[in-house]
Amino acid sequence: MAAPLRIGLAGLGTVGATVAQHLVAGSIEGVCVSVISARDATKDRGFDTSSMRFVDNPLEMATAEDVDLVVELIGGQDGVAYELVQASLKAGKPVVTANKAMLAAHAHDLSELSVTGQGAAVPLAYEAAVAGGIPVIKTVREGLAGNQIQRLAGILNGTCNYILTRMEEAKLSFADALREAQDKGFAEADPALDVSGVDAAQKLSILSALAFGLAPNYVTMQVDGIEAISAQDIYFAGQFDCVIRLVGVSQMENGSVYQRVTPMLVRRGNNLAQVRNELNALTVQASPVGELFLQGPGAGGGATASAVLSDIADVALGFGRPLFASLVSDMVSPSCETAPECEYYLRLSLADKPGSMAKATQILAENGVSIEEVIQRSSNDGGGFLPVVFITHEVGESSLNNALLALQEQQEICNGVLSLPIFADGL
Amino acid sequence: MAAPLRIGLAGLGTVGATVAQHLVAGSIEGVCVSVISARDATKDRGFDTSSMRFVDNPLEMATAEDVDLVVELIGGQDGVAYELVQASLKAGKPVVTANKAMLAAHAHDLSELSVTGQGAAVPLAYEAAVAGGIPVIKTVREGLAGNQIQRLAGILNGTCNYILTRMEEAKLSFADALREAQDKGFAEADPALDVSGVDAAQKLSILSALAFGLAPNYVTMQVDGIEAISAQDIYFAGQFDCVIRLVGVSQMENGSVYQRVTPMLVRRGNNLAQVRNELNALTVQASPVGELFLQGPGAGGGATASAVLSDIADVALGFGRPLFASLVSDMVSPSCETAPECEYYLRLSLADKPGSMAKATQILAENGVSIEEVIQRSSNDGGGFLPVVFITHEVGESSLNNALLALQEQQEICNGVLSLPIFADGL
Repeated sequence: MAAPLRIGLAGLGTVGATVAQHLVAGSIEGVCVSVISARDATKDRGFDTSSMRFVDNPLEMATAEDVDLVVELIGGQDGVAYELVQASLKAGKPVVTANKAMLAAHAHDLSELSVTGQGAAVPLAYEAAVAGGIPVIKTVREGLAGNQIQRLAGILNGTCNYILTRMEEAKLSFADALREAQDKGFAEADPALDVSGVDAAQKLSILSALAFGLAPNYVTMQVDGIEAISAQDIYFAGQFDCVIRLVGVSQMENGSVYQRVTPMLVRRGNNLAQVRNELNALTVQASPVGELFLQGPGAGGGATASAVLSDIADVALGFGRPLFASLVSDMVSPSCETAPECEYYLRLSLADKPGSMAKATQILAENGVSIEEVIQRSSNDGGGFLPVVFITHEVGESSLNNALLALQEQQEICNGVLSLPIFADGL
Repeated sequence: MAAPLRIGLAGLGTVGATVAQHLVAGSIEGVCVSVISARDATKDRGFDTSSMRFVDNPLEMATAEDVDLVVELIGGQDGVAYELVQASLKAGKPVVTANKAMLAAHAHDLSELSVTGQGAAVPLAYEAAVAGGIPVIKTVREGLAGNQIQRLAGILNGTCNYILTRMEEAKLSFADALREAQDKGFAEADPALDVSGVDAAQKLSILSALAFGLAPNYVTMQVDGIEAISAQDIYFAGQFDCVIRLVGVSQMENGSVYQRVTPMLVRRGNNLAQVRNELNALTVQASPVGELFLQGPGAGGGATASAVLSDIADVALGFGRPLFASLVSDMVSPSCETAPECEYYLRLSLADKPGSMAKATQILAENGVSIEEVIQRSSNDGGGFLPVVFITHEVGESSLNNALLALQEQQEICNGVLSLPIFADGL
């Protein structure tokens, strides 16, 4: 019998406690929890801590003699979590983390510590950081090894998906759906990182690094949240047999990588449209495999704990891997800032008077935006402006933006525009 | 630079040629093809063979000095394929194979050679053997490590799924849909292994070994094919908002494992119902993760080659694993032969005369089979018997079988029965 792998577990919230419960129950052979750390040392978390050493300062785990693997579940982009991970890697100690904010923000430095490591690479495992319980890291990195990935498209934030699903199915407003998500524990008290799309962007940037060798950088990524989506957009999308989903897309375009997080119209027949409530999902198009679709719980104690456990098992078997196959500083894939041509959903608020529709369509046409379908609701709200919705043919982003700018200059006929890309089923 | 891993590639059909093309193009760093073998040495297969040694007898690869990893793509349960894999493992050489028939039939002996190996285990990788391009082996074995798996439910045969989809969507007969599948290259000239459910059973037995430690044995598994499914069953299923899918289910029932391959009614809202044409899929229910759903191409050169490439990459990085974590002879999970209670679809062919319906429902009731819904079509076909379809409440298999036997004894009122389980969405 080999000596057991001794785990230092930093952070005993829902995820940490679930991980500990499973390890104490013997879910992974040859692994034990030796050291724990949490804000409150005395709270009962549903597992027997009598064989474990409690430390007030989790940083001690990095150099502790009785810790072989550090599991960081403290959270937060910086602070103690980041210090612990750095110190552990510097000490040559493998790390498992669920912390996408830290990974996305510090990928450059963490890859130095993990990939170059102590002569050999030091494992830094993070299946739990992206799409919760769905093994997307393993799938993209290992299951598709040898493939050329063409596109990733993912629903990577369960809170947004829950809100959009409830707006659609229960006809809730954005505010009411958000409140419901908070009541159910899906959304943080401060939901800004979720609804703004930043959380999804952090996750997408990690996937893009794995799939395309693009240095993670969510700060410069084009990211739109779901705050601007109204009940009427959900309704109009339905008229075109679509739903609205916050989708993170990363794809190769002529040798450079285009990535974006934005609400999109997704046709009901597409797998992503069938991802409901707080679930996450990822579609991968790659050669030679074709298209894969993975769906599962993206957040919550059980889903995240599952991913952490799978990383621990890999490390225990000696199959831990560094953050990425190469240093972030060696990642040379160029990023492409221009969206590929696609169809768009345009909602214009048009003056309810003769000629405004003609003028709007003229402006669209002058800018090369051609129209596939239009819906105009009858004027019964008494207001001076009416929502009019267009589905465009495929068009480039610059043409579209020029058209939208020109429309917004015509304030007497148009007092608002919203544009959402329509997700292309194929490539 | 480490010396490259040299591959001996046995079998250059569509899959083998696709694998070779990608390796020659450098898809996996540090890997080269050194030796090849195929029936026809001279055929152009779309890659440059000038740096490769051709051998007439693939068995030479097992002991060849210039082969570090044997990739077996010859196929067939026995014969040269099995001899090559045995000889390679005996020589301590890792093997990658797509051969589910061989693995399922010889799991006991292959686990001896792989798990016990040459002192240490010898990798035997087989991602391509189950569900083609979907990384189901990796997901069940690694992605869900530390979880307790409760149920696997998979669409594991693309030919059957294609036939059932076409019967539903194009209203084809079984025979016409099969012919179409053959024309498109999905079905073998002899489709018996596919349509009988045996191919799916072989795959399911491998998954059951990974998920539940159940010794693979598809021979004693309860397996039904799709030959008995008629156009009218597809129609009636639709009336209950269901489709028919060939599903392999393996689940824990009070500490023992129940597994079965059979056509089932699947409600349209379930993920498995949305798996169309030749796609494969797997649903996994496990704790703590919850439910995962994976979908992708289950067969064809590209999908299978993708899985083979991922196995090669794992072995090249030193992450190859033995067939299973333990010897098949050490797998002690008991198998459960009795189906758990579920709802059933019953199609009876009932005499078109007064009293036959009353008699049939009386027999069902006497045997404890209670009815949730009934559909009876009007008599306009001029025959003496009419199809009548029942959806039962949950009932045990023995009660159901008793009822069906009793019905078949009443030959003057009933001249045929078909029963299909209804897939339970949850557990």
